[in-house]
Amino acid sequence: MKPVVLLAAGLALLAMSVQAKTNKPVNPCCSFPCQNRGVCLNGREPGTYTCDCENLPFYGKHCETPYFWTRVALWFKPSPETLHQLLVSENLKWLWNIVNNVRFLHDWMIRRVYLTRAEILDTPPLYETMHAYPTIAATTNHSVYARCLPPVPLDCPTPMGVKGKEKLPDVDLLLKTFFTREKFRPDPQGSSVLMTFFAQHFTHMFFKTAYKDNPGSTWSGHGVDMTSIYGSNVTDEHRLRSFKDGKLKLQILNNEEFPMYSKDAPVYMTYPSAVPQESRFALGHPFFGLLPGLFLFQTIWMREHNRVCDILREDHPDWDDERLFQTGKLITLGQTIKIVVEDYVQHLASYYVYVAFKPEVLFGYPFQYSNKIVVEFNHLYHWHPLMPDSFNISGNIVEMKDYIFRSDLVVKHGTAAMTDSLSRQRAGHMSHHNHGAVTMHVLRDTILQGREMRFQSFNNYRARFNLKPYASFEELTGEKKMAAELERLYGDVDAVEMYVGMLLEKRRKRALFGSTIVDMGAPFSVKGLLANPLCSPLYWRPSTFGGERGFDIVKSATLKKLFCNNIKGKCPLVSFRVPEYVEGDVEEATNFDFRPPPRDEL
Amino acid sequence: MKPVVLLAAGLALLAMSVQAKTNKPVNPCCSFPCQNRGVCLNGREPGTYTCDCENLPFYGKHCETPYFWTRVALWFKPSPETLHQLLVSENLKWLWNIVNNVRFLHDWMIRRVYLTRAEILDTPPLYETMHAYPTIAATTNHSVYARCLPPVPLDCPTPMGVKGKEKLPDVDLLLKTFFTREKFRPDPQGSSVLMTFFAQHFTHMFFKTAYKDNPGSTWSGHGVDMTSIYGSNVTDEHRLRSFKDGKLKLQILNNEEFPMYSKDAPVYMTYPSAVPQESRFALGHPFFGLLPGLFLFQTIWMREHNRVCDILREDHPDWDDERLFQTGKLITLGQTIKIVVEDYVQHLASYYVYVAFKPEVLFGYPFQYSNKIVVEFNHLYHWHPLMPDSFNISGNIVEMKDYIFRSDLVVKHGTAAMTDSLSRQRAGHMSHHNHGAVTMHVLRDTILQGREMRFQSFNNYRARFNLKPYASFEELTGEKKMAAELERLYGDVDAVEMYVGMLLEKRRKRALFGSTIVDMGAPFSVKGLLANPLCSPLYWRPSTFGGERGFDIVKSATLKKLFCNNIKGKCPLVSFRVPEYVEGDVEEATNFDFRPPPRDEL
Repeated sequence: MKPVVLLAAGLALLAMSVQAKTNKPVNPCCSFPCQNRGVCLNGREPGTYTCDCENLPFYGKHCETPYFWTRVALWFKPSPETLHQLLVSENLKWLWNIVNNVRFLHDWMIRRVYLTRAEILDTPPLYETMHAYPTIAATTNHSVYARCLPPVPLDCPTPMGVKGKEKLPDVDLLLKTFFTREKFRPDPQGSSVLMTFFAQHFTHMFFKTAYKDNPGSTWSGHGVDMTSIYGSNVTDEHRLRSFKDGKLKLQILNNEEFPMYSKDAPVYMTYPSAVPQESRFALGHPFFGLLPGLFLFQTIWMREHNRVCDILREDHPDWDDERLFQTGKLITLGQTIKIVVEDYVQHLASYYVYVAFKPEVLFGYPFQYSNKIVVEFNHLYHWHPLMPDSFNISGNIVEMKDYIFRSDLVVKHGTAAMTDSLSRQRAGHMSHHNHGAVTMHVLRDTILQGREMRFQSFNNYRARFNLKPYASFEELTGEKKMAAELERLYGDVDAVEMYVGMLLEKRRKRALFGSTIVDMGAPFSVKGLLANPLCSPLYWRPSTFGGERGFDIVKSATLKKLFCNNIKGKCPLVSFRVPEYVEGDVEEATNFDFRPPPRDEL
Repeated sequence: MKPVVLLAAGLALLAMSVQAKTNKPVNPCCSFPCQNRGVCLNGREPGTYTCDCENLPFYGKHCETPYFWTRVALWFKPSPETLHQLLVSENLKWLWNIVNNVRFLHDWMIRRVYLTRAEILDTPPLYETMHAYPTIAATTNHSVYARCLPPVPLDCPTPMGVKGKEKLPDVDLLLKTFFTREKFRPDPQGSSVLMTFFAQHFTHMFFKTAYKDNPGSTWSGHGVDMTSIYGSNVTDEHRLRSFKDGKLKLQILNNEEFPMYSKDAPVYMTYPSAVPQESRFALGHPFFGLLPGLFLFQTIWMREHNRVCDILREDHPDWDDERLFQTGKLITLGQTIKIVVEDYVQHLASYYVYVAFKPEVLFGYPFQYSNKIVVEFNHLYHWHPLMPDSFNISGNIVEMKDYIFRSDLVVKHGTAAMTDSLSRQRAGHMSHHNHGAVTMHVLRDTILQGREMRFQSFNNYRARFNLKPYASFEELTGEKKMAAELERLYGDVDAVEMYVGMLLEKRRKRALFGSTIVDMGAPFSVKGLLANPLCSPLYWRPSTFGGERGFDIVKSATLKKLFCNNIKGKCPLVSFRVPEYVEGDVEEATNFDFRPPPRDEL
């Protein structure tokens, strides 16, 4: 019998022993006995269950046994850990150089990346937050996020099923013990704050939680739909448009083009009442007035849209405003995906293989051009530790409290100085003990919402993404002191919460994060980008973009060009990595001098 | 040079000659010069254009030349006309018998049907009604129907581009000349009125035009989402649910189970004020009170849902109301698709090959599990000629005017008598001169909406679906008299309107319709059914349906079972074909004694 079978059988027994102890029937599915995406279905008799392995490449009572060809394929397939090591290995740079330069090898490699990342997800999705079993609403109801793993059933003995304590640790104790920033800890990969704002601006296009309903509800369009630039709905889009030559409304302030003031383009925005008129701009997302970095990206993208419209009008003097606008939007959408893949994902991955945006390698392969945003993806993308406590704008230090809702700072200092400064300032390490004071409440809400939505354990998510569940707390954190405290609080390594585990997990070599964020996030990310309608064969052709010239703008887009084409004068530094970065220039998080808060405080 | 190239070049020249005549620059794309789904893009200089053939299996100035392997494939691929002849040929019955009985041959055949039907459509869709060029909204905006062919550009010389007259025929003249029913003409395939109501009940699940906006707008969920049974939104669904054992609310009337009265389950319904309380029921679609046949299907499906919940509860005594309800809904959804494919589509197709519902044959093949309803599909599904002028209920003749909004007739006569009567009464022929008085206004609106949405010509739609455009009016109608009148009104066979062409087209052998409705409708239909999330590998397994027993209910569903399981006592006749039908028992539409209305009336 294989260890995994023993484990599953053991878990089921454990569930039954809990049953015996409490004298009430326990749902055997609470122990999550089914492997490899098998579905647990409880039987007619209490305590019985079956694992549904149909259409999976595995069989057996717990879907634990690979079919012959699966076994062969698995034999050849490196583990996620090995694969990462190969892709970031200095010793293999020569190999990746060859792959990068031989078209058919590179296409094959990129196709494998796209397909394997996408295949790990459920498309169409099976689950949403309201039900612990498949419903048709998981696919058809656009106002809920999908779920990657179903919620822990309501009738389980512990919040994580059968493992761990009956009550999860007090959230404020967790914040105090593991997450509060005392001293800013810089990102070990040298990411700049420009990258932070890029991520924030980009992802808020589709991470839109309808909090007033519940944390599983959303008003997202479920993909890269450019609402962050053009407004969340057609009404707001119309308010942002000039209706002349396809362009967006812009105003001249301080000799530069900027978005309109809210008073002049009344889109729905959420400014606190204290924010003065000159910091209230009309932007694509109601909360983009929050941080000047978001305002910068919005400004640059709006200028880019108008620049593209001018080019389109040269080639198509007969086109009306509407066609110029719609085609301009298709071009900026294409540019966005290109820049996200080749500048942003490449930066996050740090692979020696060139992470390229090549939609055409998927044509003819089984790939679903549809996407639904998954709530666990939203949670893992809570990267608030990246945010510093103050900002350096051309040498002036601005504290966070004087930075929020201050879009006017971009107007005052200019887009060039702002871009340059953000490119030179280092982001924080996405890790424990690195949440700044202003973001603590978000962390608190995130953990509580994970509980409200009955997220399965960190280790269950690891298993779901083909990562080996951690056998001990020390293996998880990579050190002993935090591991001991974590054990005291959770009792069982299989009971650690998803988001807490992600922040405490040891960092992967040459990565901003631990392996879980990378190997869970990458599939959602790759799938969300490549499944965009624009990447499908009938969209991905010159006529969609007004001809070869528009198509070339998309295919040659870079972050640098985006800024340099839209900032007058000398182009500032535009970089997702700070210029002085040297690998290994910061202390590893595992060496963190951890001291649990004194017991009397608890 | 191939004839098709000459034709395209000729069309472009024609466009330019129109330009010369009117002295204003004509958009060369008005002549639709690009073949095989190539996209016409006008150039910088007036009168110039290119055809974008990228990612198509064709190349050349007009995307007219197949690549080598395309040419080979085309050589082996029978034309739609030949294929239909083969599939309905008496002489080949022996061959189809073999195919039907050899699993791997049948699977291969069915897979080819699914894939070739789906491949002809744009997934994700490129067009919607507001724009004559690709927009991202065609995919992302769920409140518009997609478009199969983009609208005729606004700047074209004639409503159909460059062909035909500058003004389309007066709509009332068309109704009077070609569509008004004088004598009921029965369907030559012997369809029963039960089939008519099945079609109506089923398709209104996704054909939901938001008329108060515009005919391109919709409130559809864009697929088989069971809203017709469970209500259009969660609020109405809750009003229809009993919240006990997963069941829907039902009341006993006349010793049978029926839906609740509106007053007792206040879902949104659109009853005229004159309708009395006892005919006002709470149903899944606001207008399903219109016809007793719709009410019958609604009643039977509601009973079936409750029957399924009882079975589920036997196997899962621990399940709560919510899980029984959601799983019951998944089972009725699966049954719906099964019955639509194997009873309904099989009836419409009349193929000797068994049209089977086998989602598993697509697993691993490139097939998109996403669907968007296309407005042309909605238009071609306007099958009002099927409707008779009166109904025979167990020998009582009820005129249409006494039939509408009379759900109480089903209560009075009982579901058994109603089902039996509808199975024995013959539907009308979906053809010219067969619109009854009560449906004339719908036809009028349909034609006018097609004009408002600037539908391309009937022949352009034929070309889009690989059908040979008709070279003459006589070829279209299959006779001379209507053809002559049609020519007088439209001037050019390439200028006939889509819906008008469909109704006047000669019937295909062993078919209810002409070739255009079949070869345009089948792709939308097959795609819409098989792309349902339920047909995807992770949904299509026993656990989705509560285990093997639920899965079997889905896989063995038939129309007959649906009724017989839910009608007490002896099962009535349940048939989509009237029992006395003999092939060829009605006069062909091409022999219609056509007399154009006297000229002085026009």
